[in-house]
Amino acid sequence: MPSYTPPIADTRFVLDQVLGIDRYANLPGFAAASPDIVQAVLEEGGRFCAEVVFPTNQSGDHEGCTRHDDGSVTTPAGFKEAYKQFAEAGWMGLGAPEQYGGQAMPHVVSTAFEEYLISSNMAFGMYPGLTHGAIAAFLAVGSDAQKALYLPKMIAGEWTGTMNLTEPQCGTDLGLIKTKAELAADGTYKVTGTKIFISAGEHDLSDNIIHLVLAKIPGGPEGTKGISLFIVPKFTLDSDGNPGARNAVSCGSIEEKMGIHANSTCVMNYDGATGYLIGEENRGLAAMFIMMNAARLGVGLQGLGIGEVAYQNAVAYAKDRRQGRALTGPAEPDQKADTLFVHPDVRRMLMECKASLEAGRALMLWGALQVDLSHHAADEAERQAADDMLSLLTPVIKGYLTDLGYEIATKAQQVFGGHGYIREYGMEQYVRDARIAMIYEGTNGVQAMDLVGRKLPRHGGKAAMALFGLISADIAGAKDGRQAELAGKLEKALGELQAGMMWLMQNGMKDPNNAGAAAYPLMTMMGIVSLGWMWLKMARAAQAQIDAGEGDRGFLDAKLVTARFFAERILPDVGALRRKLEGGAEAVMALPVEAF
Amino acid sequence: MPSYTPPIADTRFVLDQVLGIDRYANLPGFAAASPDIVQAVLEEGGRFCAEVVFPTNQSGDHEGCTRHDDGSVTTPAGFKEAYKQFAEAGWMGLGAPEQYGGQAMPHVVSTAFEEYLISSNMAFGMYPGLTHGAIAAFLAVGSDAQKALYLPKMIAGEWTGTMNLTEPQCGTDLGLIKTKAELAADGTYKVTGTKIFISAGEHDLSDNIIHLVLAKIPGGPEGTKGISLFIVPKFTLDSDGNPGARNAVSCGSIEEKMGIHANSTCVMNYDGATGYLIGEENRGLAAMFIMMNAARLGVGLQGLGIGEVAYQNAVAYAKDRRQGRALTGPAEPDQKADTLFVHPDVRRMLMECKASLEAGRALMLWGALQVDLSHHAADEAERQAADDMLSLLTPVIKGYLTDLGYEIATKAQQVFGGHGYIREYGMEQYVRDARIAMIYEGTNGVQAMDLVGRKLPRHGGKAAMALFGLISADIAGAKDGRQAELAGKLEKALGELQAGMMWLMQNGMKDPNNAGAAAYPLMTMMGIVSLGWMWLKMARAAQAQIDAGEGDRGFLDAKLVTARFFAERILPDVGALRRKLEGGAEAVMALPVEAF
Repeated sequence: MPSYTPPIADTRFVLDQVLGIDRYANLPGFAAASPDIVQAVLEEGGRFCAEVVFPTNQSGDHEGCTRHDDGSVTTPAGFKEAYKQFAEAGWMGLGAPEQYGGQAMPHVVSTAFEEYLISSNMAFGMYPGLTHGAIAAFLAVGSDAQKALYLPKMIAGEWTGTMNLTEPQCGTDLGLIKTKAELAADGTYKVTGTKIFISAGEHDLSDNIIHLVLAKIPGGPEGTKGISLFIVPKFTLDSDGNPGARNAVSCGSIEEKMGIHANSTCVMNYDGATGYLIGEENRGLAAMFIMMNAARLGVGLQGLGIGEVAYQNAVAYAKDRRQGRALTGPAEPDQKADTLFVHPDVRRMLMECKASLEAGRALMLWGALQVDLSHHAADEAERQAADDMLSLLTPVIKGYLTDLGYEIATKAQQVFGGHGYIREYGMEQYVRDARIAMIYEGTNGVQAMDLVGRKLPRHGGKAAMALFGLISADIAGAKDGRQAELAGKLEKALGELQAGMMWLMQNGMKDPNNAGAAAYPLMTMMGIVSLGWMWLKMARAAQAQIDAGEGDRGFLDAKLVTARFFAERILPDVGALRRKLEGGAEAVMALPVEAF
Repeated sequence: MPSYTPPIADTRFVLDQVLGIDRYANLPGFAAASPDIVQAVLEEGGRFCAEVVFPTNQSGDHEGCTRHDDGSVTTPAGFKEAYKQFAEAGWMGLGAPEQYGGQAMPHVVSTAFEEYLISSNMAFGMYPGLTHGAIAAFLAVGSDAQKALYLPKMIAGEWTGTMNLTEPQCGTDLGLIKTKAELAADGTYKVTGTKIFISAGEHDLSDNIIHLVLAKIPGGPEGTKGISLFIVPKFTLDSDGNPGARNAVSCGSIEEKMGIHANSTCVMNYDGATGYLIGEENRGLAAMFIMMNAARLGVGLQGLGIGEVAYQNAVAYAKDRRQGRALTGPAEPDQKADTLFVHPDVRRMLMECKASLEAGRALMLWGALQVDLSHHAADEAERQAADDMLSLLTPVIKGYLTDLGYEIATKAQQVFGGHGYIREYGMEQYVRDARIAMIYEGTNGVQAMDLVGRKLPRHGGKAAMALFGLISADIAGAKDGRQAELAGKLEKALGELQAGMMWLMQNGMKDPNNAGAAAYPLMTMMGIVSLGWMWLKMARAAQAQIDAGEGDRGFLDAKLVTARFFAERILPDVGALRRKLEGGAEAVMALPVEAF
């Protein structure tokens, strides 16, 4: 049976030593996020996740969700009770505005908590996760009345939310949406259509489900310019704002999936359901993208969260399982065999996981800090800079961290040998669960295209130049110090990335397919260089603590070794990716379709 | 619902144009393998796989195997009938000796057929697959009486076979085996112990199941030197050689697994079961390795077979699904959207699959030809050379092709977007099925250690030098021709591989952990260079046909484009792997266990 321990020390190291969140005490939310409070939140939140949520993970996967003939859906045993505790303890509102009953902790802190929640049970975490997305949409484009009506209940966890985009004929290409919303005499809309792959679409955890639905108002512009966003509650609200009449929206079926069995993935049928326009008419896609960007960071976090728990279990197994002898001679001659830890190739797998996870956590929290700064930084230029940086790296965080999550879960499973393939050990669930994160909220290929097609060229490439400037400054600051070797290797990788981007700029103009064919390698290069940058920051922070005689020496020394491992064993991929990218689109596109 | 078409044209291209099997017409078996016969075997075999076996694949995964209270196991609906047809049509004995009722086709031809069988239903293919392994062991170490008693029934498919190695406390480390075999008065043995992960251990397909079981004879040497191999039939044979009394071996449970649900993976309990020593006492491991090497090639073939069928379905989906527009402007303006095929990143994924699969098939069949030559080549030196080459590349074929199989299945699933995650579309099954091939018959990490620890150093590295000689000769032969660019890129990659190996020789001596930490990168480098070598052979063969005005021009042109893609988009990884390898063991091994 798997186990899980929230990596609080590592989270704290990133928050305090790498990001230095105490520097932002003047900003809203941060004042309340003193080290003591953060420690208490992480400890209490971590305990809740490990003790209340984690025990539902494996059983939830085995049992899955059940749809009944009346369209209702039951979540697995234990989910309802765990969710009730989750809501009552206030975890839903950890990062939400005080105005609507939230605790207004910085996003960087609530993100740390959400990692623990995902590690404990990713399918469970999706119910609040989708609600967070819906809350973000209300905050961004809802009217004051709409906010007042819905947000307190959602932030209290009494109601949950969903995002309804996909239809059978359209996933990525939302211009193909057919769901229509017809204006009624009372100013509401009648929403009619079928949405598929709706996570948390129907379940028994909350008193109401607030669907946010993309639909077209008849007579509007063609394609994506004619899409609006609607609030469609499962129960429309009575005059007191409480769940009233059952709306004409129902779950037609739930999907049988590879993983995340405990999350109900629904086909939702809208049969003239009452809907309320949220945001401007025909500007639904822009509103949805607000949810989507928040959701994409959340999906990147799923890669990290599943990777972490899978890795922890591989470490435990490698400590326990005895098989073979060290190449350098028996490590424990009195035992019949040594532990798996003596084998360099087992170590290689565990170090690859560790090196990616710790830097992934730093990048994730760095990204979450940009969310805080983009909202709350003191001056507009700072807010804009944070927003630019976040926009640029959102597809990288989503795409690269979820690729890593799957790779790490697969490696952790590999450490178990045959036992990794057996359900009872729980490792194969992590692989199945991690897999979806590469697909939903825009496949990772779509993320790569978002990066090269939208994010990089925006404002003449300003954000990328700013990012490179930050990385270069850290390299320059480290080049004469004890992290000079790491800095030198990162500088080389950064140079490859910049050269790849230069190639892209020069050749993407000539033939847009060159940009398309370069997209995935470029996203991966940016992911690796970003993690390398985080390692440089972490190694410098660890060294500074060591020099000052502070902190846990074993923990800090491990950072330095793991940084070196990253530089030696992961950074080299950047050079290979550059060469692939510079291969261009010709061989990619040359074959006629019938030759496949 | 997935579909499958046996890639006969591609198989024939490899057999005829690349390997030129007509050159071996003087060898046993090959005389009967004229192009017409081979075509008939592949067509008829392919038809059987696609029409009879393939329809049981998805239903078999959903239904799985069922163990009943009496220990009997029922395979999924349709399996029994399909297996009956399989046996009656003689497919079990395709490559088996005529002496025992087989058809004595060359191994290179039966391997081609087995690829189709795996693509059609990997779990089904394991029942005959394990039997092939058992047949190989009987042929290698069985007495004439044992061969006469068992082989005709197994080759006819009336009886199936199993391999029993693993126990709860020992997987890779077979020295830890506890199962014991005590000599009885009648010269038989009483076998007692528990074996786990026994594929096809109990089922309803055949009249008898012949278990080959590793066990220790009490009083023998410690560790692996005291292991013997035993025949333990489910039903001991009566005086006519027919199944008689039920033996004291039973299936205690079947495992719930990530995939291959339709293969019964059993815990087998031996309670003083009657066993017969096969081969020499205490030489069981050597006998088992004969099965194992055959089985490892078979597992490599699983990587190829699952990759192929997953890829075919991704191609079909990409042709059919319309989403978005080509970057260069609408390809089909009269349609609401273009097909996925217009998107460079979708093409990239499909080309990566195609480039690896076609070269993987060539490498697989090249390996199978070495099996034939190692048995049947005219002179001893040739036989030895083929055996050396095969031994060297067996861990690479197993390890690298199964890594690829999983990667390809994952990419093919990715092409489907959200639909790839839904069971009904069948793609997630391919990922789950492909996953086991990286684990069983020795994890891929064990393959890598076999490569660097045993295969490379054998006879002072003779086999590797011979392999490099062959590759270099092909490069030299191509350098002035139209494949000069491909040859040049392969030469560079070969140079990186040789440098990596040199580093290993120099540093593995100093610290064996350097060899352990280098093992996986080296195996992958050898895999990539081997596939690159196959691409050079295929490109030259295609060019020769084009120049001669022979063959299907579209097919041959596609080979040249795909070869170029491989050189531009896959070969560059070799350089990065060299750099990783040369990082050595220090950062891999430096952390104390408690730092993980």
